[in-house]
Amino acid sequence: MIAKTSGPDLLAMVENFFRTSFSTDNPLITEAVSRMLAAGGKRLRPRLTLLAAEANGANAADQLPLAAYMELIHVATLIHDDVVDHAATRRGINATAVDYGNRVSVLAGDYLFAWIFKNVTAQYPAPIPHILSATLADICDGEVMQLRSLGNLQLSLNEYVEVVMKKTASLFAASAECGAIMTAGSPLRVNALRNFGLYYGIAFQMKDDLLDMTAQAEALGKPVGNDLRERKVTIPLILSLEDGDAQFREQVTRFYGTQGEDNIDGIIGEISRRGGFDRTREHIARYCQRAKMSLAPLGKARARARLHHLADTLTNE
Amino acid sequence: MIAKTSGPDLLAMVENFFRTSFSTDNPLITEAVSRMLAAGGKRLRPRLTLLAAEANGANAADQLPLAAYMELIHVATLIHDDVVDHAATRRGINATAVDYGNRVSVLAGDYLFAWIFKNVTAQYPAPIPHILSATLADICDGEVMQLRSLGNLQLSLNEYVEVVMKKTASLFAASAECGAIMTAGSPLRVNALRNFGLYYGIAFQMKDDLLDMTAQAEALGKPVGNDLRERKVTIPLILSLEDGDAQFREQVTRFYGTQGEDNIDGIIGEISRRGGFDRTREHIARYCQRAKMSLAPLGKARARARLHHLADTLTNE
Repeated sequence: MIAKTSGPDLLAMVENFFRTSFSTDNPLITEAVSRMLAAGGKRLRPRLTLLAAEANGANAADQLPLAAYMELIHVATLIHDDVVDHAATRRGINATAVDYGNRVSVLAGDYLFAWIFKNVTAQYPAPIPHILSATLADICDGEVMQLRSLGNLQLSLNEYVEVVMKKTASLFAASAECGAIMTAGSPLRVNALRNFGLYYGIAFQMKDDLLDMTAQAEALGKPVGNDLRERKVTIPLILSLEDGDAQFREQVTRFYGTQGEDNIDGIIGEISRRGGFDRTREHIARYCQRAKMSLAPLGKARARARLHHLADTLTNE
Repeated sequence: MIAKTSGPDLLAMVENFFRTSFSTDNPLITEAVSRMLAAGGKRLRPRLTLLAAEANGANAADQLPLAAYMELIHVATLIHDDVVDHAATRRGINATAVDYGNRVSVLAGDYLFAWIFKNVTAQYPAPIPHILSATLADICDGEVMQLRSLGNLQLSLNEYVEVVMKKTASLFAASAECGAIMTAGSPLRVNALRNFGLYYGIAFQMKDDLLDMTAQAEALGKPVGNDLRERKVTIPLILSLEDGDAQFREQVTRFYGTQGEDNIDGIIGEISRRGGFDRTREHIARYCQRAKMSLAPLGKARARARLHHLADTLTNE
């Protein structure tokens, strides 16, 4: 059981599920989805589903299809993100849109969404299909909110967290929640696991936004400072602007105005110097703590320790 | 009751349902969807839902939300089509993608799909949510099949019909089927109404493809010969190629190769001269006839005459 929810095995199992169950006569769609799936990722969403099942003392392997659907919803949003962001690379490989054109990307993502809902409505009872579609609505909502806030240096930390809850944490929350529901968890346990997913998801996105500025391009699979180039306003920048220094705000405004490459290292250096990275790490630690505390209703379930461990990986760099 | 399923009233009612029930804090999404919805269309899909309900002797007005969801699925696919086809105009107005950019178009369409499924899974019993998601999968499948067959002059009439069944007729079939299911129609009646929708939908798309070459740009709301310009291979062309004239095939191949504007009138003239339009009208009449014959199990229901009338509008120009 333990092996089933750990890294490489889970990766292989989700891919295997997809390979054996995904069906379309359209090689273009299959190839677009397979490539995005094979490009990696840590399969954190299915892991949450399986750990939630384990936390209820259930056989996690029984929830593997549900876990795989969670990852596939994520994959479908990534395929559409490539159209949305005109991103040239994603996870270190060419974006679907670059290889196949926007037309195929939009349709492959749509087909994948439809295929998932077709299966989920046939195979899972209420409220699972409803939770998944409501989550997808949240994700889209969050993505549009993010689009509307591009380049907006007035964006508050609260507004940033609201966007993150919708575009990222909602699917982590649903992944844990659905795993708990399908294994007949009590409402208290379901809610505990959902909250873990939500707080963990917020911390995960904050970490992702931090790494966009601090990691090596190779480790990221995309260029460093990509968010800044796309004029996204993320937590390290928001926190570094909080000291109210007019000159720095001016510098960032100028950078966003020109969409220049030249002084991106200078901006990142300023964010670091003004404590943007350190303070982001504090917020990550705080949300991980909240995630772990959410699990109190689980008692001594062994899966609780493993969920704690998952949260700790975000704070131990 | 009769007024409820007729043209202007139904238009207003679907829009009213949308206005009063669609909710998002995102003005960008609301505007993109509202504009596409307000741009017109004949609301044929919701009309089928309501007529199917009437055919079962039920109060059609009770199925208005379901009917509206059918139209909104269509609207969502139109929003995504604009990205897919790089279309500059649609229904005579600017395409969503032109006004808002591909990013917003993709997200607005996704949000609308998610919103529909969120409501349908909460409000309708099995198998309605499953039928809708399976239909969406068919639509995407058909659209990709169409993409793959662009410029393929070997496309047979059977292959064309298969694409049309998936990309267009599947939603007409589902619209009638769901209206019948929700009003407790017997399996025989449900199937009769579904088949009507399917055959009617095939005839509808054939007529649409015919009008693309024969109508005035103003009436179409888009340029005449748009399909040819996009290298789509539709029924009038397929039938006009059937006489095996090598010179005409060569002419079309050249036109597709250059994607030229210059001799589009020449191509359309050739299609007409070779009987492409007349023979397309024969196929439309045949599918309308099949649609009407499908309704035999309905007996003397008054709605049956109105469905017949709907089919007849495709053959009476």
